[in-house]
Amino acid sequence: MSSDIFPVVFGICLDAEAIWTGQNPEAQHRPVMLSQGVFAVREALNPLLDLLDENGVRSTFFIPGVTADKYPNAVRLIQSRGHEFGSHGYNHRSVLTISPEEDAQEMVQGIEAIERITKIRPRIWRSPSWEWSPRSMDLMLANGVDISTNFHDTLRPYRHTRDGKPVSLVELPVQWHLADAPYFRYGGQIGRVIHSAAQVEAIWQEEFDALYEMPGTFFHLTLHVQLIGHPGRMKMLQRFTRHMRGHSRVRFMNSTETAALVP
Amino acid sequence: MSSDIFPVVFGICLDAEAIWTGQNPEAQHRPVMLSQGVFAVREALNPLLDLLDENGVRSTFFIPGVTADKYPNAVRLIQSRGHEFGSHGYNHRSVLTISPEEDAQEMVQGIEAIERITKIRPRIWRSPSWEWSPRSMDLMLANGVDISTNFHDTLRPYRHTRDGKPVSLVELPVQWHLADAPYFRYGGQIGRVIHSAAQVEAIWQEEFDALYEMPGTFFHLTLHVQLIGHPGRMKMLQRFTRHMRGHSRVRFMNSTETAALVP
Amino acid sequence: MSSDIFPVVFGICLDAEAIWTGQNPEAQHRPVMLSQGVFAVREALNPLLDLLDENGVRSTFFIPGVTADKYPNAVRLIQSRGHEFGSHGYNHRSVLTISPEEDAQEMVQGIEAIERITKIRPRIWRSPSWEWSPRSMDLMLANGVDISTNFHDTLRPYRHTRDGKPVSLVELPVQWHLADAPYFRYGGQIGRVIHSAAQVEAIWQEEFDALYEMPGTFFHLTLHVQLIGHPGRMKMLQRFTRHMRGHSRVRFMNSTETAALVP
Amino acid sequence: MSSDIFPVVFGICLDAEAIWTGQNPEAQHRPVMLSQGVFAVREALNPLLDLLDENGVRSTFFIPGVTADKYPNAVRLIQSRGHEFGSHGYNHRSVLTISPEEDAQEMVQGIEAIERITKIRPRIWRSPSWEWSPRSMDLMLANGVDISTNFHDTLRPYRHTRDGKPVSLVELPVQWHLADAPYFRYGGQIGRVIHSAAQVEAIWQEEFDALYEMPGTFFHLTLHVQLIGHPGRMKMLQRFTRHMRGHSRVRFMNSTETAALVP
Repeated sequence: MSSDIFPVVFGICLDAEAIWTGQNPEAQHRPVMLSQGVFAVREALNPLLDLLDENGVRSTFFIPGVTADKYPNAVRLIQSRGHEFGSHGYNHRSVLTISPEEDAQEMVQGIEAIERITKIRPRIWRSPSWEWSPRSMDLMLANGVDISTNFHDTLRPYRHTRDGKPVSLVELPVQWHLADAPYFRYGGQIGRVIHSAAQVEAIWQEEFDALYEMPGTFFHLTLHVQLIGHPGRMKMLQRFTRHMRGHSRVRFMNSTETAALVP
Repeated sequence: MSSDIFPVVFGICLDAEAIWTGQNPEAQHRPVMLSQGVFAVREALNPLLDLLDENGVRSTFFIPGVTADKYPNAVRLIQSRGHEFGSHGYNHRSVLTISPEEDAQEMVQGIEAIERITKIRPRIWRSPSWEWSPRSMDLMLANGVDISTNFHDTLRPYRHTRDGKPVSLVELPVQWHLADAPYFRYGGQIGRVIHSAAQVEAIWQEEFDALYEMPGTFFHLTLHVQLIGHPGRMKMLQRFTRHMRGHSRVRFMNSTETAALVP
Repeated sequence: MSSDIFPVVFGICLDAEAIWTGQNPEAQHRPVMLSQGVFAVREALNPLLDLLDENGVRSTFFIPGVTADKYPNAVRLIQSRGHEFGSHGYNHRSVLTISPEEDAQEMVQGIEAIERITKIRPRIWRSPSWEWSPRSMDLMLANGVDISTNFHDTLRPYRHTRDGKPVSLVELPVQWHLADAPYFRYGGQIGRVIHSAAQVEAIWQEEFDALYEMPGTFFHLTLHVQLIGHPGRMKMLQRFTRHMRGHSRVRFMNSTETAALVP
Repeated sequence: MSSDIFPVVFGICLDAEAIWTGQNPEAQHRPVMLSQGVFAVREALNPLLDLLDENGVRSTFFIPGVTADKYPNAVRLIQSRGHEFGSHGYNHRSVLTISPEEDAQEMVQGIEAIERITKIRPRIWRSPSWEWSPRSMDLMLANGVDISTNFHDTLRPYRHTRDGKPVSLVELPVQWHLADAPYFRYGGQIGRVIHSAAQVEAIWQEEFDALYEMPGTFFHLTLHVQLIGHPGRMKMLQRFTRHMRGHSRVRFMNSTETAALVP
């Protein structure tokens, strides 16, 4: 990539209840646990969209099909604000634990749900748990997906290869420490820690500041509406976004624009 | 809600031994583990009531029936200081793991235990683990409960609905990160972390400061007498309460007063 | 207790290998894991004894019988420096998981091991995991133990009762957050966190400062030679001990002296 | 050791995918999880080698045989920059969970893989999980290994003994809190915490500063290329290395040079 610009990509998951039901269908009988996901739609989405607007951020939203079908107006609202969509599977199930048939079905139905509402077929795929099954590449290529945001192996976008030859699939790598979930996700579990927003800001900022000095890299932030959307964390995101804006080479770009930089 | 005031609600659990025996009846044979709960009654309650008095805070105490029956004088003392009561079940058992019969029994007996001692029937219910069973709404409506403090889906009080129609039940939502338990509860478990009071103050304060600026929201703090009642944490609570008092629109209100603001 | 003085008690566990073998006898085949315990004797004990001397601290050491029998010179060294001893069981096994016969045997053999080396029969007992079995009080009374340091229910020493009547057993309560183990113990386990010494100092100090202002309380610090004995943590303990010494009512006392203040 | 100098040893693990496949062969079917290891070779190794060069650090790299065979150019690159190698087993499997035959095989094949590429037979061994099996000493002595970096029992290098007599094996002890893994390793596990680089710097620095004042000790830092190699952490390592260089008695030494100081 050109070293004249430094792409900053916000990949934002709107999972809502699916974050719980995807792991465990029994969770559908736990309305209070699910309410942590409902928070994303009822309370958090609007202020987050405003924050993105104010800072000129066009981002990529990943929405499981089941969530899109339940909240089509949320999908349309996001679209109307200029953001693009990636597929996030249909039921938010891990691709490592399902059959080959289910794997294909999750891919197809997840894409179709987004297309049905937005009238645009998504060409980006993030698996619900940042995993690839042995079939994932084939499924993406067969379904017109040309951007994956799952791997952790580099600090820069790259083109995938098969048998040593480049394929029509670009990877925008992610990092656990540049997501919100490890710090904020909490369901009452022993051993899970809730960080302060300020602690998370420190981690993201020390990494941003160092990446910004490395030619050819980019900054890929992973957010979940239901986690980042609490007010104290939103203020932190506002501060952190302004911090990034203060760097002259920063360009807020969506996944498609960033992938286009890869030869 | 009016944006002229900003309600601050303290929901305080006095579980004592029931925090352990509710999860695991075998815990009744572990006197030292139980002593962490006894601390609430023997040592922590009086200073906490003084702190609330000094700051003009009238709060809502949630006490499992078994604890109320064991420590009726503690219940009377709390009542004499002007606080109200919610029901917290009888045995502090999760409503997700019990039979329909036990579920009903926990609701009824939990309410009756408080009523027997205070002569006032509680109209507020918080489940022992912030959960609703499929029967919880029916059980509340049948037993005269019109305030629930269990859900996490919004930042503001709201009225529950059934089949799209409002019912006589108001929700005062809570948040895990605005409770003391995730930071202070510790029974020797691998992986459980003990935070400093100052770290918890930072998390609560960043959220309070941000919420205060959002019209229509409120601040709902969840405390456990046995956790917050240690001296260093009490000093933090004193500091944090004064911080809130320094905001002109803050009104310390109990659950009933806050629920009354919902149309 | 008199409010003219503020007792500070250091209860120090020298478990060495027994911290691992007590939980799991298989650990005897894991020399590297055991070496974390050996560190206490080979490296950490001497600097810790010096630090206690420099600050005029006479403390109570809790040593499992198996450790005392393996390292009698360490026991004699501690004794020569003016510290007293409590019993800590023989094999550092949890009293909740053993048979009544084993429970009695652990108590008797643990006491006898210390007596054999020091020529003084210990009258203090801390169970290996801060627990009492249903037999613990009887076993203590039958074996001449009149101080227990296990419970968490108050902030002040008190006399135990049976059937409402005081017995010849005083409790010096402890607290998890005033021990070093929750912050420093680490054996590679997922989810276990290693704190900085400075973070632990902050927690202990906020609690000390608040307790110091509460008449009738005391400060009871629980240390493990193998955990606190690392150099950065020792510097913190030095700072923290000096901080406490800077308070005029502080008296460093051992368990026996502190228990003697209870009527 | 002479107190005129203070040895600082960097022991650096280049595990790549083997960190996952060694624990669980099924991980070979999880390309995204493995990509966290690939990061070490694709992105992190070069900047780390530069940092070591700039600071005049010659270190010891521990590379499982399977990783060396997969990335021989990485091994040659490290060698060309003046670092030495230790053996880290072949498949990065725990020596506690394998048969005696496998134990011997892991030792022999791990050594031979390194020798095959570097033309130098490694004389240093660190087990994949800092453990010794009952056979480890015999296996090391039989295979020409004379430095072990596994134990936690002292703060200074020492010679191992058998039946009370010194053998040709020197130990360079390590400490969990002076490694990067407890703070940075993360694979999505509940309860695992990601620290900021600044928090880890604080822990390492408080320990370094205290050790530096203790005659006869040394500082032994354990790093994993895939963990420390993220940009924000690299900046911290740069700061911390400069902090150490600012101490006049500091000498950056590899394991062989440090072990040679032991009589």
